[in-house]
Amino acid sequence: MTRANETRQTSVTSDPNDSAATLAITDRTKLRRLPKRGSYDAAVVHAILDEALVCHIGFAGGERAPFVIPTTHVRIDDCLYVHGSAASHMLRSLAEGVEICVTVTLIDGLVFARSAFHHSVNYRSVVVFGTAMLVEDAAAKRRALDALIDKLSPNRTAACRGPNEKELLATKVIAVPILEASAKIRTGPPIDDAEDMALPYWAGIVPVQLARGLPRTAADCDRGPPADLR
Amino acid sequence: MTRANETRQTSVTSDPNDSAATLAITDRTKLRRLPKRGSYDAAVVHAILDEALVCHIGFAGGERAPFVIPTTHVRIDDCLYVHGSAASHMLRSLAEGVEICVTVTLIDGLVFARSAFHHSVNYRSVVVFGTAMLVEDAAAKRRALDALIDKLSPNRTAACRGPNEKELLATKVIAVPILEASAKIRTGPPIDDAEDMALPYWAGIVPVQLARGLPRTAADCDRGPPADLR
Repeated sequence: MTRANETRQTSVTSDPNDSAATLAITDRTKLRRLPKRGSYDAAVVHAILDEALVCHIGFAGGERAPFVIPTTHVRIDDCLYVHGSAASHMLRSLAEGVEICVTVTLIDGLVFARSAFHHSVNYRSVVVFGTAMLVEDAAAKRRALDALIDKLSPNRTAACRGPNEKELLATKVIAVPILEASAKIRTGPPIDDAEDMALPYWAGIVPVQLARGLPRTAADCDRGPPADLR
Repeated sequence: MTRANETRQTSVTSDPNDSAATLAITDRTKLRRLPKRGSYDAAVVHAILDEALVCHIGFAGGERAPFVIPTTHVRIDDCLYVHGSAASHMLRSLAEGVEICVTVTLIDGLVFARSAFHHSVNYRSVVVFGTAMLVEDAAAKRRALDALIDKLSPNRTAACRGPNEKELLATKVIAVPILEASAKIRTGPPIDDAEDMALPYWAGIVPVQLARGLPRTAADCDRGPPADLR
């Protein structure tokens, strides 16, 4: 793995006895608005990254707007991995070791208050800043690719054909250290102003979640879905 | 509404009889990878923006990585609106009329192929490039704020207290024209290579969707949820 930026100023509290490692707060991860919604707890950050199926990666677009591109991701320890075609614009950009911002957002609920102003959304989001690093070590690359597959369904790598040399050549894997990151979370009911409490309006939440349906076997496949997907 | 960039080089086909307006393709919206997944049909772009509850906004971070921040959005005609606290970093940045990239992603399914390489995700995403414009016209600002509320539930603005002067002052609304945009969509079953078809592995999809649950009334509210939320 290339190390484009060995001298990062951010670091994870590394006490091995401290299971709730705290990420260092930097100027750009410090939550100024509603800081009570923020968390720098690595376990909280990791759990949100693990639950999200896609992330949005921001990288510079020269003198114009940055690009924000969605892609699947997987976390292994304190590193986030994404992959893609070696020919893609994003992968070619990231492979150059640029600084990126990776954001994931989980929506948990719609929040209805008595006032329009206090309507909101319950969410859990994570923002990671870091330098994209091309994963060149073959074993590390394969481990990340397997983890991306297993994130869709546990142990799926054991239930499909692994990548061959040509496919590995056509695929790039990029790593981003999860060192400069923060989570932001809103949870719970609406918070109305005291003078609005008697207004004749309903207040509450409507939970939302990404739900998985029943597997649908491909028309050209004559076997049933594995037990862990049914 | 400020018009920071009247001389845009992109435009929507404006034949009023053409209900399927096509967005002009620009260098940065042209889909080079898997162009068959792309669409520049305004109706397709609008439908994806309308279904998504949150977008991810990318804006420059000076010499370092861009910021990618999630927020709710709403579309009215060919304009996308976001709002936030006048005090927030993002809103202050956007109000300066900077170029931004707004991306939304809907996940529709997990795609399991016989080969690891052809595993994928069914998705519908939209990327919009444009110049953020502070909405200064009071009526346009109020219309966007109402639409943001009504996106959570139709006609909710009629069932809550509207914003007062103080709340309007504390809130900024930003508009982005949906002129330079493209959609990218993957749909359907896995596509395996011919030589993998006989492998003893299941192939198919697992549909996923953002599902709304039953409303939960706030503990301090003594009325039941409105009919259209039950």
